[in-house]
Amino acid sequence: MRIDKINRRGFLQASAAGGAAASASAAAPPQAAPVPPHDVTRRLAAWAVSSRKEDVPAAVRRDALRTVLNWTGCAVGGSRHETVDIAIRALKPFSGPEQASVLGRKDRLDALNASLMNGISSHIFDFDDTDLRTIVHPAGPVAPALLALAEYHPYSGADFLHALIIGVEVECRIANAVYPQHYDVGWHITGTVGPFGAAAAAGKVLGLSEQQMVWALGLAATQPVGLREMFGTMTKSFHPGRASQNGLMAALLAKQNFTSSDQSIEATRGWANVLSTARNYREITEDLGGQYQVSFNTYKPFPCGIVIHPAIDGSLQLRAEHQLTAEKIDRIELRVHPLVLELTGKKAPRTGLESKFSVYHAVAAAMVYGRVGEPAFGDQAARDPTVMALRDRVTATVDPAIKEDQMGIAVVLKDGRRVDKFIEHAIGSAKNPMTDSQLEGKFKGLADGILPPAATSRLIDFCWNLEKAPDAGQLARIAGA
Amino acid sequence: MRIDKINRRGFLQASAAGGAAASASAAAPPQAAPVPPHDVTRRLAAWAVSSRKEDVPAAVRRDALRTVLNWTGCAVGGSRHETVDIAIRALKPFSGPEQASVLGRKDRLDALNASLMNGISSHIFDFDDTDLRTIVHPAGPVAPALLALAEYHPYSGADFLHALIIGVEVECRIANAVYPQHYDVGWHITGTVGPFGAAAAAGKVLGLSEQQMVWALGLAATQPVGLREMFGTMTKSFHPGRASQNGLMAALLAKQNFTSSDQSIEATRGWANVLSTARNYREITEDLGGQYQVSFNTYKPFPCGIVIHPAIDGSLQLRAEHQLTAEKIDRIELRVHPLVLELTGKKAPRTGLESKFSVYHAVAAAMVYGRVGEPAFGDQAARDPTVMALRDRVTATVDPAIKEDQMGIAVVLKDGRRVDKFIEHAIGSAKNPMTDSQLEGKFKGLADGILPPAATSRLIDFCWNLEKAPDAGQLARIAGA
Repeated sequence: MRIDKINRRGFLQASAAGGAAASASAAAPPQAAPVPPHDVTRRLAAWAVSSRKEDVPAAVRRDALRTVLNWTGCAVGGSRHETVDIAIRALKPFSGPEQASVLGRKDRLDALNASLMNGISSHIFDFDDTDLRTIVHPAGPVAPALLALAEYHPYSGADFLHALIIGVEVECRIANAVYPQHYDVGWHITGTVGPFGAAAAAGKVLGLSEQQMVWALGLAATQPVGLREMFGTMTKSFHPGRASQNGLMAALLAKQNFTSSDQSIEATRGWANVLSTARNYREITEDLGGQYQVSFNTYKPFPCGIVIHPAIDGSLQLRAEHQLTAEKIDRIELRVHPLVLELTGKKAPRTGLESKFSVYHAVAAAMVYGRVGEPAFGDQAARDPTVMALRDRVTATVDPAIKEDQMGIAVVLKDGRRVDKFIEHAIGSAKNPMTDSQLEGKFKGLADGILPPAATSRLIDFCWNLEKAPDAGQLARIAGA
Repeated sequence: MRIDKINRRGFLQASAAGGAAASASAAAPPQAAPVPPHDVTRRLAAWAVSSRKEDVPAAVRRDALRTVLNWTGCAVGGSRHETVDIAIRALKPFSGPEQASVLGRKDRLDALNASLMNGISSHIFDFDDTDLRTIVHPAGPVAPALLALAEYHPYSGADFLHALIIGVEVECRIANAVYPQHYDVGWHITGTVGPFGAAAAAGKVLGLSEQQMVWALGLAATQPVGLREMFGTMTKSFHPGRASQNGLMAALLAKQNFTSSDQSIEATRGWANVLSTARNYREITEDLGGQYQVSFNTYKPFPCGIVIHPAIDGSLQLRAEHQLTAEKIDRIELRVHPLVLELTGKKAPRTGLESKFSVYHAVAAAMVYGRVGEPAFGDQAARDPTVMALRDRVTATVDPAIKEDQMGIAVVLKDGRRVDKFIEHAIGSAKNPMTDSQLEGKFKGLADGILPPAATSRLIDFCWNLEKAPDAGQLARIAGA
């Protein structure tokens, strides 16, 4: 699937090229009728219900395992954040039986509340998986619902993986149909398509009929979560969590024949018309089962916005190649894609959270620390005098010829030497994905201090061997701290 | 407050006159600056936090008691519907401790799940209270959250009433700011403004600080519920229920300092910009505490869309005045407002649900049965040969001169006589509200067969005397079946 992925998409290609509609119309046959189909929801539901494990190519399932591994590490890594502490403190008094685990913690909650918490924790560091075309974080809404169900009523790891692939397929296709207009309106797309993904995945495990799956998608459609205005607050990571919970609830209601619309996506007053200014339903219905969205999923090496990944990658490489230290550096000059300064142009961040929006800080922290994990974006790093001093010696110039996964960096040393590097495809981008071993390293960094090293190793092994596990819920128990 | 209400609003006046923006600009001083304020959310939160019981005029509190009474009757009346059966069957396994009652049933659930169920049941018959300007059903999202909290941590009836007034104020003002454009986009407005109302009301009872109230509104903003596409399915009544639950959850999270946006309503990527094509923030911030939205609330005498209320009213009056029976009637001729046929023009409804969208059925059922409660819109009535035969002898002519709360009806008898009537203001409209006694009669009709008559009487008494009750949760216990 890797080759196909590379041919089909570049790094943030869709946002640069005008999005889903543009890329889809290029792909569609010229004689295709412009009339949208009137059975979008039903066709999607029918596919989800009829898809069989054995239909999914081995390479796709392997891609999905990487998604599971990366998501699990992120959920464990975020689990001790105060955002999760507060959410549990507020809602535990209302939780039902202890059916499911919050990864990385001792807390056990009912399945719906557990899906909320695990969805929150997996997104806290902005470190979870990314569909580069739409900026959806696919696993966040889907995996928590599946895991909570697995603890509630055990089912196999192979079924878990298959349902995850279906959930990701459903949410990403719906996202493709409305991106970028839907995101531009102001929706946090992970929270708005997430309920569909969680509902489809949970509905698959629950064995919904086609009609029930249609209703589950309807109940998901009517519960979108997430305004972009919430970015920078705890409510941002609430979005994938609540999306997961909403989707799981939708599937549970549909299983008991709680009725909903038959055309929730495509109806005049349905999801796509109400929540977006444009839509292309072929993105949802064409070639279902012929290609799988999970194979387009990517994984971040650094816990920050994807646009500054090339700069961090370049900094770390130069530092290693030339044994650079902050004291040796006179100044650093960057040439970057325009989006870099638009989104991360903060010159003097005062907090860890703000530092994620500063390419200057990111480059300085990479040079000073030699690695860029979550601590590099903590409050302490943001106030580290060495980082602050170097940060002020970083300049950035916008170069429209530079692509989103590219960047030029030149370091001028105090001894007069000048070393430089051009990053063609940043680590973690579609053309330069993280290796399995790098994903494991990321996982260990996230789990460090939360799980004992032996549990971390067991968890990594369990993820890679998920398809052989008789009980997918075992994942949660290993990660239960 | 009644006089003020009549002066300010007609029956569905706003939708006819172009909505909130039009009526607001007429009311606003000509020198008012067109620049929207940037502290809409904070001003609303500050008002909600600082409002004191003793600030609210007695007449307003009396209006709010009517809202409580009507809502309680609707919640009891809908409680045995299969929609509630299914929702409880699906979600009870995940419910927390038995903190709160589902009205009209033996079930007790955690406070969040109870608010969901009571919100669902109160809207099932489309019989709950209506803000005529925006078609918001104000109590549905607010009352269930307050009642669940009252059972969880007892507080006084006076505080309940005050918080209800605040919740209704917040949700209706936000609705006023975006109606009709927001509704036209396709949002079920009760479900989208409802979380704000529930969050403000619950937040008041929980004693949120101003900053916490701002966050609660943010968490409400990011969880809108409800596409109009769901009308005609069980998911429609899910909307006020889930709105109530979302708002209560928002307040509970904010109480523990779960952070959110400070400008969730008015920010560029905030609620009003993302969910509506137009907005008028003065509707939210002007004269807070000077007038109260709950005094504009109205109560339906008949369990169906408000547009066919004049026709039912006229039919029942003519029937009583002339002892009409179906056999005596040759034909019935209606002159109606254009919306009547647009929304309820179904000639031959096959089911009870469809019959709610047929003015022909409604008039025939009124003539045949002499009263129009929920059974008149049941499956049995829709297939009653007498009703069907009379229904086919009803004709309706659109007359643009007829207002929305008006209607002309003429009955031609088989003996050649012709009797007619012109309804100036239908019963239940702003200018002809249901009396307290009529509200009690409606309540008894809804509770009949669900609560013992003695409990019904106690419940009605409790509602009227709510402000004297030391424990508002007693309402739920009386109505707990």
